[in-house]
Amino acid sequence: MALRIDLNCDMGESFGAWKMGNDEEILPFVSSANIACGFHGGDPATMRKTVAAALKHGVSIGAHPGLPDLQGFGRRNMAITDQEAYDMMVVQIGALAGVAASQGTRLRHVKAHGQLYNMAVKNEGLTRALAQATYDVDKELVFFALAGSQMIPIAESIGLRVASEVFGDRNYSPDGTLSPRNQPNAMITDVQQSIKQVLQMVKTGTLTANDGTIVKVRADTLCIHGDQPGAVTFAKAIREALRAEGIEVGV
Amino acid sequence: MALRIDLNCDMGESFGAWKMGNDEEILPFVSSANIACGFHGGDPATMRKTVAAALKHGVSIGAHPGLPDLQGFGRRNMAITDQEAYDMMVVQIGALAGVAASQGTRLRHVKAHGQLYNMAVKNEGLTRALAQATYDVDKELVFFALAGSQMIPIAESIGLRVASEVFGDRNYSPDGTLSPRNQPNAMITDVQQSIKQVLQMVKTGTLTANDGTIVKVRADTLCIHGDQPGAVTFAKAIREALRAEGIEVGV
Amino acid sequence: MALRIDLNCDMGESFGAWKMGNDEEILPFVSSANIACGFHGGDPATMRKTVAAALKHGVSIGAHPGLPDLQGFGRRNMAITDQEAYDMMVVQIGALAGVAASQGTRLRHVKAHGQLYNMAVKNEGLTRALAQATYDVDKELVFFALAGSQMIPIAESIGLRVASEVFGDRNYSPDGTLSPRNQPNAMITDVQQSIKQVLQMVKTGTLTANDGTIVKVRADTLCIHGDQPGAVTFAKAIREALRAEGIEVGV
Amino acid sequence: MALRIDLNCDMGESFGAWKMGNDEEILPFVSSANIACGFHGGDPATMRKTVAAALKHGVSIGAHPGLPDLQGFGRRNMAITDQEAYDMMVVQIGALAGVAASQGTRLRHVKAHGQLYNMAVKNEGLTRALAQATYDVDKELVFFALAGSQMIPIAESIGLRVASEVFGDRNYSPDGTLSPRNQPNAMITDVQQSIKQVLQMVKTGTLTANDGTIVKVRADTLCIHGDQPGAVTFAKAIREALRAEGIEVGV
Repeated sequence: MALRIDLNCDMGESFGAWKMGNDEEILPFVSSANIACGFHGGDPATMRKTVAAALKHGVSIGAHPGLPDLQGFGRRNMAITDQEAYDMMVVQIGALAGVAASQGTRLRHVKAHGQLYNMAVKNEGLTRALAQATYDVDKELVFFALAGSQMIPIAESIGLRVASEVFGDRNYSPDGTLSPRNQPNAMITDVQQSIKQVLQMVKTGTLTANDGTIVKVRADTLCIHGDQPGAVTFAKAIREALRAEGIEVGV
Repeated sequence: MALRIDLNCDMGESFGAWKMGNDEEILPFVSSANIACGFHGGDPATMRKTVAAALKHGVSIGAHPGLPDLQGFGRRNMAITDQEAYDMMVVQIGALAGVAASQGTRLRHVKAHGQLYNMAVKNEGLTRALAQATYDVDKELVFFALAGSQMIPIAESIGLRVASEVFGDRNYSPDGTLSPRNQPNAMITDVQQSIKQVLQMVKTGTLTANDGTIVKVRADTLCIHGDQPGAVTFAKAIREALRAEGIEVGV
Repeated sequence: MALRIDLNCDMGESFGAWKMGNDEEILPFVSSANIACGFHGGDPATMRKTVAAALKHGVSIGAHPGLPDLQGFGRRNMAITDQEAYDMMVVQIGALAGVAASQGTRLRHVKAHGQLYNMAVKNEGLTRALAQATYDVDKELVFFALAGSQMIPIAESIGLRVASEVFGDRNYSPDGTLSPRNQPNAMITDVQQSIKQVLQMVKTGTLTANDGTIVKVRADTLCIHGDQPGAVTFAKAIREALRAEGIEVGV
Repeated sequence: MALRIDLNCDMGESFGAWKMGNDEEILPFVSSANIACGFHGGDPATMRKTVAAALKHGVSIGAHPGLPDLQGFGRRNMAITDQEAYDMMVVQIGALAGVAASQGTRLRHVKAHGQLYNMAVKNEGLTRALAQATYDVDKELVFFALAGSQMIPIAESIGLRVASEVFGDRNYSPDGTLSPRNQPNAMITDVQQSIKQVLQMVKTGTLTANDGTIVKVRADTLCIHGDQPGAVTFAKAIREALRAEGIEVGV
C-alpha cells in the first residue's frame, strides 16, 4: 500500500469586508480545508464561497470551530466550561454542515481552532467535550488531534476516527510534544528542513527531536499554515516533495 | 379525517445572561417551536436547552433564522441582498440542525423571524432566497409562510412543503392580508374573539375580514405569541377550545 | 465631621430587547451608579436612559467597563494583555463620558466589571493598565478598588483618587481579603448580619473576619448587588440603617 | 487670505486580526482623519494606534461613527430610528474622544460613515439626530456634511460649525448633487481630471456639472478615498497640485 498523508490548511477566515489568507492559491496543494464557522472568523458568505472553492479543487471539507472572540480571532484563552465548549462546537459544526449540505456535500472532519485547540491539548475535560460534540453531531466525522497528545485516545474512546496531526514547521521535544514557542529553535523556517522532517515522519513513522532522539510519531495529517509569508511556496514545495517520493496526498 | 391545526410559538430567544419568554410554560400547549439560531437572539446553550425542552414536551422543532442584528432583535429592516439572505438562512438552519442532531432528532420546519419574515412577505426575490436556502439544506423541511401571501406559491414551486400560517390576534383585510398595525382594530386583544376567529378558520376554511367580507383562508399553523402579557393564558385557552371542538393540534 | 459612605450599584446592564436588573427601584437608595458601557452589557439606548435615571435621582455616575464578552456577560476569564485592557477601558470610559456630556454632566468614577475586576485584584500589571487608562482619560475620576487589595496603592501611585470598596454580603478572611466563594459561609445572606457588618466598618474602620479577628478596613463605598432576589429590600434596609445611625450616604 | 482646503480620509478601519486600508501611507498627504469607532469597523487597539499615527503626522482627528453592522461594514441600509441614531452617535463620538483624551488631544470633527452618511443626506430627521448628538457631546466639533445638501443648514441651525464636503472622484448633476453611481460617468477615474475639478472648486467656488452647467459649490473639505487602488498616488498628486497652486491644505 502506498504511503499517504493528508495536507490540511485553515481557510475561510475572512470576515465581512475584511480579507484574510490566500485560500485560492493554497487550495491546489492541500487535501483538507479547515473552514472557519463564524465565531473567531468567517461569515455566512465566506463559508459558502470557501466550501465551493474547496469542492472545485476536490479538497475535503472540515469545520474549524473557534472561541466566541471575533476581536481576538479566537487566540485568547477564555475560561469556558466544558458544557460551553460542547455547545459552541455543536452549533459551529452544524452551521458549516448546513453550508456543505446546501452544496450537495458533507463535512469530513473537525479541527478545533487556535486557542481552543491549544487549550484542549492540555485539558482532558475540554477534549472530551469537543470530541463528544463532534460525535453527537455526526459520528462519521474525523477528529483532528495533536500527534502524541491525550486528545487522540480520548476522541477514539468516544468512538471517533482520529487523524493524528503533525507539523513541518515546528521542532519536537524528546517526549514527542511540540517544543514550546518560547524556546530557541521552536520554529523550523527552512523549507528543506521542514520537508525533510515531514518525509521522515511519513516514511519511517518517526521524528528526530530537538536533542537528536528518534521518537515514534503517527502522521495522518500535516498542518499547512496558510497565513504566513511564503505559505504558498511552502505548500507547493511540500506537495512536490511528496509526489517525488511517491507519497499520496489525501484523506 | 379529523380537523387539525399546528400551534407554533417563537422560543429560545434568551441570550447569554439575559432571559426572554416563557418557553417552559408555553411548551405544554403548542405543537411547533420556532427556535432562534443566534443571529437575532439565542446562543449555543439556549439552543441546546430549548431543543431539549421541546423534545421533552413532544413539540416539533423548527429553525427561526433572523437578521444579523442582535441589538435590534432582528426587528429593524436591513437592506440585505438575496444572496446574503440565502447565506444567513443556510448557516442558521444548519446550526440548529446540528443541535437537533446532537440530541438524536431532526428539524421539521423553518420560519423566518421578525423583520426577515415581514420583508419576505412583500419581496419575491427574498422569499425565493429564503425558500431555496431551506430546500438546499434539507428538502424535507416545512416552510412556514403567511397565509394568502406570495410566499406560499413561491416556496411550493421550489419543491418545499409549506405550512400556511394564520394569526388569532390580528384582523384581516378583505383581500386576505393582515390589517396594517397602524390601523385601528388591527389587533384582537379579546381572547374569546381570537378563539372564535381561529375556530372559524379551521372549521370552515374562511375568515371574516374587518369589513365583514368572508374570505377563504388556509390555516395549517397558528402563530402563538409567547412574549406578550397573558401569552400562557391565551395558549392554554386556545388549546382547550380546539380540544373541545375535537380539532387535533399537531403538525 | 459626620461619618459617610457611598453606596454603589451596577446598572444599565440591559441589552437591546433584553432587560436586566431593577435600576429604577434601586436608584432611590444608592449614591453611585456603575453603568455598563456596551462590552459585557448595555447598549447606546440603555446607557442614555440609565444616565438620565441616575441624574433624576441625584445619583453619581460612573463607568463600569467590562470584558469584550457579551455572551458571557464579562464573567469569563479572558487572557487579555495589559495593553488590550488599557485600550478597552479607554474606549468604554469615553463612550459613557460622551453620554454624560450629552446630558450636561460628567462621570465621577470608574469601577471595572465582573471578571475584569476579579482579575485585576490578583494582577498588578492589569490593575496598572486599568488605573492608567482611567487617569489618562480623565484624571479627576475616582477609581473603585477592592478594600485591602494591591489595587489601592497602585491606583494612588498613578495619581488617582481611590474609593476603597467593601461588601456587606461577603465574609472576610483574617488578612482582610474576601473569603473565597467556594468556602462555607463565604456569603452573608441575612440582612441584619449584613447591616451589622457595614455599620461596624463605617463606625469603627474595622471588620470581624471569619475567625473572629478584628481587621482594619477602609470603607469608602459599599457594593449593593442589584440583580439578586431581595436586592431592593436590602438596599432600602441598609439605607435606613445608615440614616438611623446618622451616617451620611454619598460620594 | 490664502485659499485653503481640508483633505479628509477614512482611517482606522482595521478590526482585530483583519487589516484594512493604507493609513500610514496616506497620512502624510491629508489634514483630517475620520477614525472608525468600533461599530462598522475599528476596535480599541486600532483606535489608539490610529489616533497616535494621526498625531504623529499632525493630522486632525475626527470621529467616523457608523451603523451597528460590523459584518456589513456599515454599508447596508438599516431602519434605525432618529433616537437610535442619536444614541449610537453619542457613544461612538465619546469612545473616540476618550482615546483622544488619553493621548492628550481632542477631536476636531465628526463625519458619519458609509450608509449612515448616505441615509442622512436624504433624511432631515436623521441629519438632525446626528448633528444634535454631535453638538450635545461637544459643541466645538465641526460637522462634515455633503456640499449642497440639506445637512448643512440643519447642522448650522443646531449651532454646529459645518465643513462642506466635496468629492474629486465624482461627477455632479446641474443641481449640485452627486451624479448617482448607476449613471455612466458618475465616477471620475482620471487623476488629472479629478485634480482639475478640485482646483476649480477651491479657486472659483464653482464646479462644472455633467451637462456643462457651472454651479456654485462650497468646498471646505475634500474626501480622499483611502481604500481604492491608487489611493496613495492620488492623495499625493492632489496634495502636490494644491501646493503648486499655493492653496493651503488644512482645517
